[in-house]
Amino acid sequence: MESYRLFYWPQIPGRGEFIRLAFRFANVTFEEINAIDSLQQLTSPQSDLANNPPHFAVPILEVTKDNDTFMLSQTSVILAYLAQKFRLDGEQANVNKEVTRWHVQQLTLTALDWADEAHNVHHPCGPTLYYEDQKQAAAEAAKAFRKDRIPKFVRHFEKAITSNSSLTQACRLIGDKTSIADLVLFQSLEGLYFAFPHAMQKSVAPNSVLLQFRQELAQELRDYLHSADRRRFNDGLFRHYPELDPP
Amino acid sequence: MESYRLFYWPQIPGRGEFIRLAFRFANVTFEEINAIDSLQQLTSPQSDLANNPPHFAVPILEVTKDNDTFMLSQTSVILAYLAQKFRLDGEQANVNKEVTRWHVQQLTLTALDWADEAHNVHHPCGPTLYYEDQKQAAAEAAKAFRKDRIPKFVRHFEKAITSNSSLTQACRLIGDKTSIADLVLFQSLEGLYFAFPHAMQKSVAPNSVLLQFRQELAQELRDYLHSADRRRFNDGLFRHYPELDPP
Repeated sequence: MESYRLFYWPQIPGRGEFIRLAFRFANVTFEEINAIDSLQQLTSPQSDLANNPPHFAVPILEVTKDNDTFMLSQTSVILAYLAQKFRLDGEQANVNKEVTRWHVQQLTLTALDWADEAHNVHHPCGPTLYYEDQKQAAAEAAKAFRKDRIPKFVRHFEKAITSNSSLTQACRLIGDKTSIADLVLFQSLEGLYFAFPHAMQKSVAPNSVLLQFRQELAQELRDYLHSADRRRFNDGLFRHYPELDPP
Repeated sequence: MESYRLFYWPQIPGRGEFIRLAFRFANVTFEEINAIDSLQQLTSPQSDLANNPPHFAVPILEVTKDNDTFMLSQTSVILAYLAQKFRLDGEQANVNKEVTRWHVQQLTLTALDWADEAHNVHHPCGPTLYYEDQKQAAAEAAKAFRKDRIPKFVRHFEKAITSNSSLTQACRLIGDKTSIADLVLFQSLEGLYFAFPHAMQKSVAPNSVLLQFRQELAQELRDYLHSADRRRFNDGLFRHYPELDPP
């Protein structure tokens, strides 16, 4: 049995939420550390991390088993690790397991890319400047994001769901069981509907499989989503600025 | 024995080069397909990809073994796959092999992030607009990138190399054998020195381990780097605009 500590910013769902969803869905407990000084200490080039390479940024996951401890950072790496542990890696009967695992990672990365691009829209000139100091560039970025990128991502994931050959009744990206790729896409969709409600409504047709997908995942995650633990979107990765999403 | 086909844009090194370095370093042959119509066909939401999920973008790797074929996309996923096949995953004596593999992936992702950020500097408002249409935002992005981000990445990777506890004489990120993380960092450094020569010179001290690292990797890769096959940087992922990197 392993135990886990997640180091991430307080309050915002952010990239930490992709990881929280994996724990919540798998019903595995973890401790979350939000103290800013701990986070800064772990990401400082001065800290001694024993046998771990340095971390560029949070989220960081600490894994303890017996008397061994190691740490991982980079959202997609943490997710791939947990997917394997929690059997969220798309395992299905009669299908090459190794290839499926790589395909789940591929779709996970693309769903994370969508979130990254949504972040870059409100911070086009970099993460170290305030939104208020890059509003004009953000307006340009948002225009291209709404016109070109949102529709491209929407069509991509619609295709992934409809071409899933194991599809029975359920809308899933790979196989018929929920994988880490589904959880990440769900969270990215939630963030996009929060940040760009008008653009999303224009790009996602009323009969899109993405709407059915979103409903099914919300149903599977309902206890957590309705709990006080679920963090609300505010000014993190996904942000709603009305001027970036006109009706 | 597997055979490989890499689908990527013609001419530019781009994200394909991270993958080419893995093949070249491991001395494994592969076929490269650069025909634009093939690439467009593989990334179109209309194409039938048999048992593969859709691809959002190139690079795409096709793997054939016996009579089975599958495809992977997302640079970091392709690299993780090849690292395992080609033993570029940081294997060392007396160290937990699984944890090492995740650490190699973590460092690979951060080196790819550095390349992504360098790309976003010349395309802050999105990949679907020309540089010429976003020059002012690019100038702002470049300023923050030179001032804050380049030094942060430099210090991060210096720390990774110096804290590598298996370090003997060689400068490597994990262990003392070249891993996929080393190859990706090498390529990102080459791109950054091409795109931002002045900023890099200011941020990398003359006695930095990164300079020794770069020399050692160049030596290991010398046959390929000096061959006609090695693609020169031009207007791809890494671009040199003098106005974005003043002396």
